[in-house]
Amino acid sequence: MRLKEIGEFGFIDRIRNGCLVRSASVIKGIGDDCCVFKTSPGLVTLFTTDMLVENIHFIRGAITPYKLGRKSVAVNISDIAAMGGTPREAVVSIAIPDTLEVEYVDAVYDGMKSIAKEYDVNLLGGDTTASPEHLVVNIALVGEALEEEVLYRSGARVGDVVFVTGTVGSSAAGLDMILTKRAFEEAGPLLDAHHDPRPHVKAGRIIAGLKVASALIDVSDGVAADLGHICKESGVGAIIAEASIPMENLFRRYCDQFELDPLHLALHVGEDYVLLGTVPGRSVDRLAGALKSAGCEFFAIGTIAAEAGLRLRGSDDSLRTIPPGGWDHFT
Amino acid sequence: MRLKEIGEFGFIDRIRNGCLVRSASVIKGIGDDCCVFKTSPGLVTLFTTDMLVENIHFIRGAITPYKLGRKSVAVNISDIAAMGGTPREAVVSIAIPDTLEVEYVDAVYDGMKSIAKEYDVNLLGGDTTASPEHLVVNIALVGEALEEEVLYRSGARVGDVVFVTGTVGSSAAGLDMILTKRAFEEAGPLLDAHHDPRPHVKAGRIIAGLKVASALIDVSDGVAADLGHICKESGVGAIIAEASIPMENLFRRYCDQFELDPLHLALHVGEDYVLLGTVPGRSVDRLAGALKSAGCEFFAIGTIAAEAGLRLRGSDDSLRTIPPGGWDHFT
Repeated sequence: MRLKEIGEFGFIDRIRNGCLVRSASVIKGIGDDCCVFKTSPGLVTLFTTDMLVENIHFIRGAITPYKLGRKSVAVNISDIAAMGGTPREAVVSIAIPDTLEVEYVDAVYDGMKSIAKEYDVNLLGGDTTASPEHLVVNIALVGEALEEEVLYRSGARVGDVVFVTGTVGSSAAGLDMILTKRAFEEAGPLLDAHHDPRPHVKAGRIIAGLKVASALIDVSDGVAADLGHICKESGVGAIIAEASIPMENLFRRYCDQFELDPLHLALHVGEDYVLLGTVPGRSVDRLAGALKSAGCEFFAIGTIAAEAGLRLRGSDDSLRTIPPGGWDHFT
Repeated sequence: MRLKEIGEFGFIDRIRNGCLVRSASVIKGIGDDCCVFKTSPGLVTLFTTDMLVENIHFIRGAITPYKLGRKSVAVNISDIAAMGGTPREAVVSIAIPDTLEVEYVDAVYDGMKSIAKEYDVNLLGGDTTASPEHLVVNIALVGEALEEEVLYRSGARVGDVVFVTGTVGSSAAGLDMILTKRAFEEAGPLLDAHHDPRPHVKAGRIIAGLKVASALIDVSDGVAADLGHICKESGVGAIIAEASIPMENLFRRYCDQFELDPLHLALHVGEDYVLLGTVPGRSVDRLAGALKSAGCEFFAIGTIAAEAGLRLRGSDDSLRTIPPGGWDHFT
């Protein structure tokens, strides 16, 4: 059997049995943005890892090595943000093809160091090795959080408001530009949305600290897929209001110019690395106020429903089913 | 400039600047088997990562997927053992070529789970992705230790006895057999020494708990290179006694049959994953006794000297310089 027949998430379900041999200190194993285990009383360690593979996650000619370094660390920091934690210590594994110049790899590390410094993360070690052909970068990152503040995918309740902490879609437009080589006058910000995401750690800390949100995830697979993860883990469904999905004007102009459906890109492509969460209606104002007064954003985009699956409410109040698709590495 | 011009360790020296942005809780960053940072009072977290790349670290047809899974976790466990710690929680990143059957990947995970269970390690999460061509497995592992017990590469003192906790060379013979396809009647144990190493966690815990050893490392790059790491970090040199290097009889027979120099394989090839350490002479008997009564091994193989570099004392009492070479991924 091939992996594309069962998909990335089918595969994860397949291998998760037998992974936990000592459960007393473990709060969360496979199935969230990070795993979570107890360290000292009241404190937990968050642990995550992400691998970027050449020609799967990036094209060497399309991203600068500096931004590749930044992104490799950023996507891990975003997983810590998605639990409401603080990123702390990272280790780097890198497999380097013989054809690559040292100066290229220096620039990858310069990028890693720059974003690590911005987020107060130490790069403490790792593994450097040769690669037969493709560049591979893997980061593993530990962070910390108060046990009572950690936010999982599994807490969403019927009636909760669904929110995001930033606009979505721009990263998908950047990716579209890379893949199609379309010429667009203001390409920079869209390419940067894809190549140089800024994880929402500050927003995550505020959301976690208030202790009013019920679930949190980062948008890496796409709003539809990531909200789908929350719904699956929480045993609920959701309705998204089409008109309330926040998008940059530049992103809308890109979609206009090339006759692309902005909704499709915003919902189904991903890699925006904003946070997506749920919060009971009574706490929406408090959470939105706290985020906005700290310079973060809050956009209510929908509601958690009892009925399974995702639905989209159009501007004419019609409801249609959103296919669950997001990014799956194997299908 | 190409990486092979500066080598793996030259490269590491090149990138280590600027990696530490928050040093208060960090005891060891780049440059040991694990990085070490404080968690709760008296307790430290050990953090390590290792990447196995197809056609660099393994050949898909030469190792079973089950043993590949075991080895990918084992080499990380060995890094925790080399600090005297206890391995605890692991995350797995895997990049899977489209051509690979799900059943193959299942077997890789079965191997990971089997060794994780043997060493009481949880597999708590990770990242699964596609790969354009080569299979890549990265493990990141955290462990724990008492701060006062952790053993670094940097503590060796002139006059200390150099020891190993097991025989060396067999893994090199296994690798030789894979690369040369030599036919050898009793191939199994030599191939297993290479494909299925058993990290010396128990020995590491005993060594750390006694608090008499001055430095510790695991033999992954080869005795010469790994003792070289201890010497470099400790600012000393060492003399190894040729006759005292422990080798399996089967390994000697393999070298005899194919006219290979056992000393060369034992000193310069690596991947034995035994521990190599130093201990003051007055504590040798105590350490050896504690290890042996727990079913572990102890072999004194040399002495730490003031003069830099590694030297080999022959059976005729002659001294010759050992070239510092071990495994370097780039040269």
